[in-house]
This record gives sequence, structure tokens and C-alpha cells, in this order.
Amino acid sequence: MTETITHTVRNGVDTTNLFATLDVLKAQPDLARFRFRARNQWMGGSHNRSTIKDFYAAGGEDTSRAEAFTLDAGEPAILIGADDGPNPAEFLLHALAACVTTSLVYAAAARKVKLTAVSSTLEGDLDVQGAMGLDDGVRNGFEQIRITVHIAGEATPEKLREVVQRGTDRSVVFDSITRGVPVSVEVVTP
Amino acid sequence: MTETITHTVRNGVDTTNLFATLDVLKAQPDLARFRFRARNQWMGGSHNRSTIKDFYAAGGEDTSRAEAFTLDAGEPAILIGADDGPNPAEFLLHALAACVTTSLVYAAAARKVKLTAVSSTLEGDLDVQGAMGLDDGVRNGFEQIRITVHIAGEATPEKLREVVQRGTDRSVVFDSITRGVPVSVEVVTP
Repeated sequence: MTETITHTVRNGVDTTNLFATLDVLKAQPDLARFRFRARNQWMGGSHNRSTIKDFYAAGGEDTSRAEAFTLDAGEPAILIGADDGPNPAEFLLHALAACVTTSLVYAAAARKVKLTAVSSTLEGDLDVQGAMGLDDGVRNGFEQIRITVHIAGEATPEKLREVVQRGTDRSVVFDSITRGVPVSVEVVTP
Repeated sequence: MTETITHTVRNGVDTTNLFATLDVLKAQPDLARFRFRARNQWMGGSHNRSTIKDFYAAGGEDTSRAEAFTLDAGEPAILIGADDGPNPAEFLLHALAACVTTSLVYAAAARKVKLTAVSSTLEGDLDVQGAMGLDDGVRNGFEQIRITVHIAGEATPEKLREVVQRGTDRSVVFDSITRGVPVSVEVVTP
């Protein structure tokens, strides 16, 4: 006997798998614990490289990735670098953009909203007097970040706005950046 | 007449340029205003791509980059993706790692500490019940991030620890993530 399961794919998201995942997590909430990782290596000057592969999910180490991702960070000339990659602050903006986009696309898929185009532009304002140690009254991090999301699909403007709202409301990175995350640092010397 | 300027390079950082930059910013603090940007495009499903090139710095648009950087984000299979890139939460960890590394390398260069090796491992804990909308009592973002920095150089362990401390104290991304940043969202529909 052959069992046939029909998978529904909307916005490129397999919603059959999405809802099955949600059902599993509802039944076994302890499987919802994830641990993501990055390993970073200094390459010289402002150039460093992260390797990203393994992570913990759903009760065990996830080994589904055959290859590691590598990401190079650098600084532009004005920040005494050689442009070996986007700079760390730009990576933060990308992380935020990517998370909001993915969250809203999944939210739309779950709500049966077919999207045709999503793009966004992000800007982050910074006064480098803080990070350069020139003025303790200036914060080191971004003062403000602005996102403009352009979204189109087979839905009313109101529905599309609702989908973006849900995307930001449920984004891991949006929440991490707007509410802050405790970060602990351990140092190992020879 | 030929003027010769000797540039000192330590840890791959041109400290002559670094100190010259600091002097300029001390004299003209308004040049310290930077604005970084990312443009993101949804590619389908959990795949999206950011383009990073232009930014505002030191009183004008910086046009020093000949080419744009492109960054692909995705999700692993367990999060209903096809691994088109690291996921957004992993990009956040990379942004943090890269910023702490760069900040501490620059701090060491400025303090005449020669480094021989810097690497770090980062872990971020997440309960996806939050982001998946299954439990409003669970936050959407990371609960906690841990960084372990391995550092070696021609200095005492105390001095190396001081350099790491200065790196985290002055890191743009460390400050942004630990203290949070206000993020505004504008939505444009057809």
C-alpha cells in the first residue's frame, strides 16, 4: 500500500511541513530549544572570518548541513580596512533584514497570502565618536535603525501590512535587537 | 622636496592612519556621523539576499567600494528551508563575533600590543515557541549569547584580557545587541 501525502507550497514555503512542525512543537514543547553557533577567526587587521555549520535543534545536534558556510568581515578604507567583506555593523543590518523578510514570508504562507515581491532597505545611524572612545556621552552602537519594506501580493494593502506586522512581531533578530540580549564573555589566554 | 611619512602597521592595522583619523574626529566631531545600509530582496521561500555597498561617512557619501557585497540568507531543513545561506540568527552571531574581534584588534594596535592569534566561538540560545507564535510567554529573540574569546600575543594574560575588555566595551554590535536599538518600520504597498 502506498500512502500519498500532498504538500502545499505557498511563497516557496512547504506549509504542510510548517504546520506539521508546529503540531510537533505543540505536543513536545521541549523540542523547541535551539542553539545556534558561529566560530570566528582573525585573519589580520580588520579581516576576520566566521564558519557556520552545526547547531542544536529539536533535542539533538542537527547534522543536515554537508558544508559549512564561511563569512568574511572587513572594514572600508575610511575605517582603516581593505574591504575584505561587509563590516560588522552592516552584517547586523543584513541579519535584521533577512529575519524580517523570512518571518513575514512564513507568516503570509501560513495565512494563505500569496506574495509576489518583497524587498527592504535598511539604514542605521551611528556616531563613531562612541566606538572610537572619543566621547563617553555618545553610545557605541547604532542610535536608530530604519526599515522600509516594499511588499506586493494577491491581498489587500491592509492584509499585506498585517503580514509585515506579524513578521516584525515574530522575528528572532528584530526582537533581539530592539529588546536586547544578555551577552557573556569568557576569555582564554595561553 | 619629497616628504616621507613612515606608517606604523601593528596587527595589520595602520596605526598612523588610525591616530590621524582620531585627530581629525577630535577636531571635527560632526565628521563622526556614519550611516550604514543594506538592501534585501526576497528570492522565494526562506531564501533572501542583501546587497551592501554605499554608506555615508565623514560628511558625505563614501564611494570607495568598486563592487557591492552580496549575502545570501536561508534556513536549514528543520526550519522549512533549503540551506541557501546561514540563517538570520546565525548572521547576528557572526556580526557580533566580527565586531568584537575587530574592536579588540584595533584596541591592541592602539595600545602597542602585538597579537598573534584571536579566535572566538559564539552560542545563542533560543526557544522557537516564541518566534513560531506558540507561547506568548516565551520571547521571540535569543535568551542569551555566550562568547568565548581565545587570544594570544606578546603581552601578559592581564594585558590580553584588558584588550578583550576594551574590544567588547567599544564594539558597535556588542553595544547594539546588549543595550538594544530602536527600529522603525515603514511599509510600502502597491
